[in-house]
Amino acid sequence: MLDEEDVMDKQMFEALSAETLPAKLGRNAALKKTIGEDPARWSVKEVGDGNLNLVFIVTGDKGAAIVKQALPYVRLVGESWPLPLKRSFFEYHALTRQAVRDPGMVPEIFFFDEAQALIVMEFLTPHVILRRALIDGRQLPKIGRDLGLFAARTLFRGSDLAMATRDKKADLALFADNIELCDITENLVFSDPYFEAALNRHTTPQLDPIVQELRADRDLKVEAQRLKHLFSAKAETLCHGDLHTGSVMVTDDETRVIDPEFAFYGPISFDVGMLLANFWMSYFSQSGHEREAGSRDGMRAYLLDTLETVWETFRAEFANLWRTERKGILYQASLFEDRNDPLGAEQALEIVIDEIWREMLGFAGVEMHRRILGLAHNADFETIVDPDRRAACETKALKLGRHLAVNRHHIHSLKDIRALAERLQKETSA
Amino acid sequence: MLDEEDVMDKQMFEALSAETLPAKLGRNAALKKTIGEDPARWSVKEVGDGNLNLVFIVTGDKGAAIVKQALPYVRLVGESWPLPLKRSFFEYHALTRQAVRDPGMVPEIFFFDEAQALIVMEFLTPHVILRRALIDGRQLPKIGRDLGLFAARTLFRGSDLAMATRDKKADLALFADNIELCDITENLVFSDPYFEAALNRHTTPQLDPIVQELRADRDLKVEAQRLKHLFSAKAETLCHGDLHTGSVMVTDDETRVIDPEFAFYGPISFDVGMLLANFWMSYFSQSGHEREAGSRDGMRAYLLDTLETVWETFRAEFANLWRTERKGILYQASLFEDRNDPLGAEQALEIVIDEIWREMLGFAGVEMHRRILGLAHNADFETIVDPDRRAACETKALKLGRHLAVNRHHIHSLKDIRALAERLQKETSA
Repeated sequence: MLDEEDVMDKQMFEALSAETLPAKLGRNAALKKTIGEDPARWSVKEVGDGNLNLVFIVTGDKGAAIVKQALPYVRLVGESWPLPLKRSFFEYHALTRQAVRDPGMVPEIFFFDEAQALIVMEFLTPHVILRRALIDGRQLPKIGRDLGLFAARTLFRGSDLAMATRDKKADLALFADNIELCDITENLVFSDPYFEAALNRHTTPQLDPIVQELRADRDLKVEAQRLKHLFSAKAETLCHGDLHTGSVMVTDDETRVIDPEFAFYGPISFDVGMLLANFWMSYFSQSGHEREAGSRDGMRAYLLDTLETVWETFRAEFANLWRTERKGILYQASLFEDRNDPLGAEQALEIVIDEIWREMLGFAGVEMHRRILGLAHNADFETIVDPDRRAACETKALKLGRHLAVNRHHIHSLKDIRALAERLQKETSA
Repeated sequence: MLDEEDVMDKQMFEALSAETLPAKLGRNAALKKTIGEDPARWSVKEVGDGNLNLVFIVTGDKGAAIVKQALPYVRLVGESWPLPLKRSFFEYHALTRQAVRDPGMVPEIFFFDEAQALIVMEFLTPHVILRRALIDGRQLPKIGRDLGLFAARTLFRGSDLAMATRDKKADLALFADNIELCDITENLVFSDPYFEAALNRHTTPQLDPIVQELRADRDLKVEAQRLKHLFSAKAETLCHGDLHTGSVMVTDDETRVIDPEFAFYGPISFDVGMLLANFWMSYFSQSGHEREAGSRDGMRAYLLDTLETVWETFRAEFANLWRTERKGILYQASLFEDRNDPLGAEQALEIVIDEIWREMLGFAGVEMHRRILGLAHNADFETIVDPDRRAACETKALKLGRHLAVNRHHIHSLKDIRALAERLQKETSA
């Protein structure tokens, strides 16, 4: 798809608009083939609600497609925060790899233009953003299993457990250039929430006391930085890099993962931790959305069940791949199975999973903090209009986040965390 | 030095010989400036005794220089094992970085020719290879401190603790291409010793029973693979990659570190572990070199003292740099010192050092094994002609290696390891 004719290819970057898009992409063969030959009959709608990019739905006689274009700055903040267009290049390369590693779970790509930082891809319909569905109280039956499989397959298959190490090292080098998006995570997730950084905000004054407490919490700050150390130095696999419920599109039957522009080589545990954190946040946000106390009880149980399904599916599929696809340089069969010592490989698996578990809990903890204390909040809490009610929800998530980040080496199971989350949920005071 | 005129620059690679060198490098400005203008008056001696490269001492009227040239195969094995010339590129880039990070500790570079895989550098004289000096029973007074400082400075300053992360990520990508030399370590250090790999050899039949025992040792194999996992995925800093006593040149007054062609982004602990292992091997090899029992007692005490000095100096200098040069993205002062919480930074330091310690012991353990069971043996043991005597020395090192690799999470101090090493040394049976 890289060699398709494109009139914009050699031009300077120019941001599209709904008005200019048909003229600019009217000769794009991939787009014409997908949605219809006559650009005069295309309709274009800009729907980007994320923090970074332009997203257009382009509809023609034959169908529709998504045109996603990066902007040279952070959309959420404005031109004062420049952000390189090459993130589109990393998104494209991550999507192509994920498509191979867990087929059918990412949108199909029709066209990529590096200079214009533009990807033409499958329009997912009637899919909605998972975060939105969860705010609405929808119980999607398949997401736990689908996301657990996606995490296990993409993370296992992008590592030295599975890849030829030559290819893994080439990808490590390729994605190492995604500096600016890693920088966002490095600052906004691991550091800014824990001191008075300029871009921070939180529900004030309600959260002021707990924010002060967390920012004075030495053990928490040290753990957050240990997790940052893992983020920056444990180049284990190709992570999605931003795997929250806003990066997942769903119907009752289908789950798709989008927006991997934060892709980088990092810890296997990172994506899993981010994802689980977003289910815990959804859990604590439900009381801000229920019409009467208890009306979201079923939804709350569903969320805790779902995150257990994500983890259990991840764990089972990771173990399955360990036993069937461990062809990389690590924990070679020549040392274990081939020498009649399959239990040696099982012993190593237990250790590797245990490490993923401990790290995952930590990443989940800091993700919960940064969404409440940092720059990029999430709609689960933001859409709770009453600040007292919102702060009560946020407080519980902050407490769970602290508990997970600091005690991650001593927590045994999601059942125990469930019991704690349910106890926090029942507390009436912040 | 990269832009100096060189007639070979555009030519195909051609291996030098003592005979062809003056003609081939006779117009090299850097070399002429260093050793003398008239190549007809140069004398050339090939002195490469390593496993991989050609090394020439070129002497002219004004002085001497080293010309080191990579060969497109492993010298130790022959043309059947190709090895890319680009390792010279990585050696050059590692040397330039080490020269900045610990000035005066690596040879000065006069010229680098990437196409010819050739580095012209300072001729160190009257320096000898440290390994050789230790075999001879020489006690070098400065090496413990010099090597501890070298490790701390190069490893701290090549990491996200100190560097701008943009530069660190660029170097990570650059060195990620050192695939083939990492592959050597991945196989020869972490895997081959633990099964009947084709290239292995050991003192036979004396070592057969313990070799069989180690290769059936599940805990050991799992640990070796966990260490390989760290090697392949913990891209923390620019490691020398081959920091044994054969990569160190010494006089009583000076210590220099050479041969970083295995340089890669790996764990801070890796170089330290490799280095300490080589002192422990030297320790156990001494009884193979002493003229009468006990005549090397002083040397043995010196070796254990020295490795304690290496570690204590490393630890102290790492802590010093932590307190004075921690300007990278990790454990930022903005979270600790700047918020009147210097003890937070000290808490994190304890954790980081503890992790380096545990990993370092593991790397030391497998390094001892691979030098006795794998392809690349070392002269400490190899020069013990009597195989019974050699095997007795090797057995003790194998036992200590196993102990360190498997129990590394529970070992508290080098004093405890010293006591164990001394007990092993006193054992008369294998």
